[in-house]
Amino acid sequence: MFGRLTLIGIGLIGGSIARVARRDGLAGEIVVSTRRQETLDRAAELGLGDRYTTDMAAAVEGADCVIVSVPVGASEAVAQAIGPHLKPGAIVSDVGSVKADVVRQMAPHLPAHAHFVPAHPVAGTEHSGPDAGFAELFHNRWCILTPPPGTDPAAVEHLAAFWRATGSKVETMTPEHHDMVLAITSHIPHLIAYNIVGTAAHLEQVTASEVIKFSAGGFRDFTRIAASDPTMWRDVFLHNKEAVIEMLGRFIEDLFALQRAVRFSDGDALFELFTKTRAIRRGIIDVGQDTAAPDFGRASAGGPAEILAKG
Amino acid sequence: MFGRLTLIGIGLIGGSIARVARRDGLAGEIVVSTRRQETLDRAAELGLGDRYTTDMAAAVEGADCVIVSVPVGASEAVAQAIGPHLKPGAIVSDVGSVKADVVRQMAPHLPAHAHFVPAHPVAGTEHSGPDAGFAELFHNRWCILTPPPGTDPAAVEHLAAFWRATGSKVETMTPEHHDMVLAITSHIPHLIAYNIVGTAAHLEQVTASEVIKFSAGGFRDFTRIAASDPTMWRDVFLHNKEAVIEMLGRFIEDLFALQRAVRFSDGDALFELFTKTRAIRRGIIDVGQDTAAPDFGRASAGGPAEILAKG
Repeated sequence: MFGRLTLIGIGLIGGSIARVARRDGLAGEIVVSTRRQETLDRAAELGLGDRYTTDMAAAVEGADCVIVSVPVGASEAVAQAIGPHLKPGAIVSDVGSVKADVVRQMAPHLPAHAHFVPAHPVAGTEHSGPDAGFAELFHNRWCILTPPPGTDPAAVEHLAAFWRATGSKVETMTPEHHDMVLAITSHIPHLIAYNIVGTAAHLEQVTASEVIKFSAGGFRDFTRIAASDPTMWRDVFLHNKEAVIEMLGRFIEDLFALQRAVRFSDGDALFELFTKTRAIRRGIIDVGQDTAAPDFGRASAGGPAEILAKG
Repeated sequence: MFGRLTLIGIGLIGGSIARVARRDGLAGEIVVSTRRQETLDRAAELGLGDRYTTDMAAAVEGADCVIVSVPVGASEAVAQAIGPHLKPGAIVSDVGSVKADVVRQMAPHLPAHAHFVPAHPVAGTEHSGPDAGFAELFHNRWCILTPPPGTDPAAVEHLAAFWRATGSKVETMTPEHHDMVLAITSHIPHLIAYNIVGTAAHLEQVTASEVIKFSAGGFRDFTRIAASDPTMWRDVFLHNKEAVIEMLGRFIEDLFALQRAVRFSDGDALFELFTKTRAIRRGIIDVGQDTAAPDFGRASAGGPAEILAKG
């Protein structure tokens, strides 16, 4: 797909791109670059690339495609560092969970002769770092491209073909629409998961040990999401503020209506909502975006998820 | 453990008790009773008991232990129906997710010669009905007993031994404390999961199809919980109103503080919360209440959870 692919940042997402590109021969050469020497050394131990350097400018020289996989708050600094060293016709992309702000940060620093095609693979786990990546991460997940108006369609299609080769499905939309969609499907879920775990940790009436012991009643599901990378998520909220606050406003409005239904014992309203929400779950399973196995397949200790965890 | 065990209600929980009791010989005879003939027929097809009847009064005759597994709103009617027919010394228990209100509903209708030991196995999946049960459901989960003051300690220990034989760990506490603990570890997580799925379904800016397609960003986790049995959960909120409203108040307070941190770009506050919440996740994994496998072990399509779902 690409002669030389440069990966800036080699955490969960960068590390997974490296693995699938290697496994399926999607790049002639993989150059890995990251800020911290320790992370770079670990990537080298794992054999994620062909060459390794902490020097981003050197890393992008001669690259046909550069994919930036860093916390979104670091996007501008990376664009500044690599912009002057991109070869003519190079495709520059990213994997950030926020798009409008990343475009604002990066576009001004990239040369006109490069093709900037921002992207967001909607995939991940609660783990982070180069060890957390795996080649199957993008399989059957969506990758959203948000090319600015006027981007060369051939470059967009080239990157789309790369993502499809990783197992992804590809959709294109504006950065603004992306940020609204992801606010409700990803950012607000993370915010409320972090929030309830924080609330539970600070109660006077219930001890942390009780919260942990009796977490199988539902709470434990939220702790998985709330174990996600703090730097990445801090940056998401700081850089998608407007959409997050708008969607959070909607969530809170609805929550007050629900609180009112509880307070006034409006069983019919509760039952109606609890019935409608099942249809969304069915939709997600029908399109293959989640497993139909009860409890995500982890329910029985000694079941497959448990065995996998123990290696 | 018991000569005759009568199960009133044969859904996910009742059906799982039946299966583990049968598999491990925890009862000489299992009598299954439920209101709807159709459900009873299905339980019989599945071979969950030795005898089947829709007549609750007949079902409890001669029973050494009666376990009521119905939506908590139905507890009083069941207690009224079975009370006069219990044999002296019979243990009566339930599995409701709410305890103080269930005690209020049931205790007045049970004879003094029976031992009432309310219980709550903190275990479940998003599926419901007799087909959803499985013998391993209680393995390594906690079962909370909330015996009223003055309950015969031998009866409490007898029921505790039964639950331990199912694979559960057993803890005893007051009904009021149980209701507070479960409000935060189970009821509020369900309420906010139902709420965000409802919010997402009613947005003008984002279509339901987009919500479903891009759900792997976090949203899909919430839809699992929001697919839980509507009748059961309506009753939980109606019958644990005070604790739910109190805990919801705490959650909302914290959410407003978090919203403020986003609005005023307080990155340090966000980072601090997002770091602390990881410790709770680690605690839950350390005590064996969740799997350490990334994404609950379901992450890669074709992985074990996927295979399990396909049978």
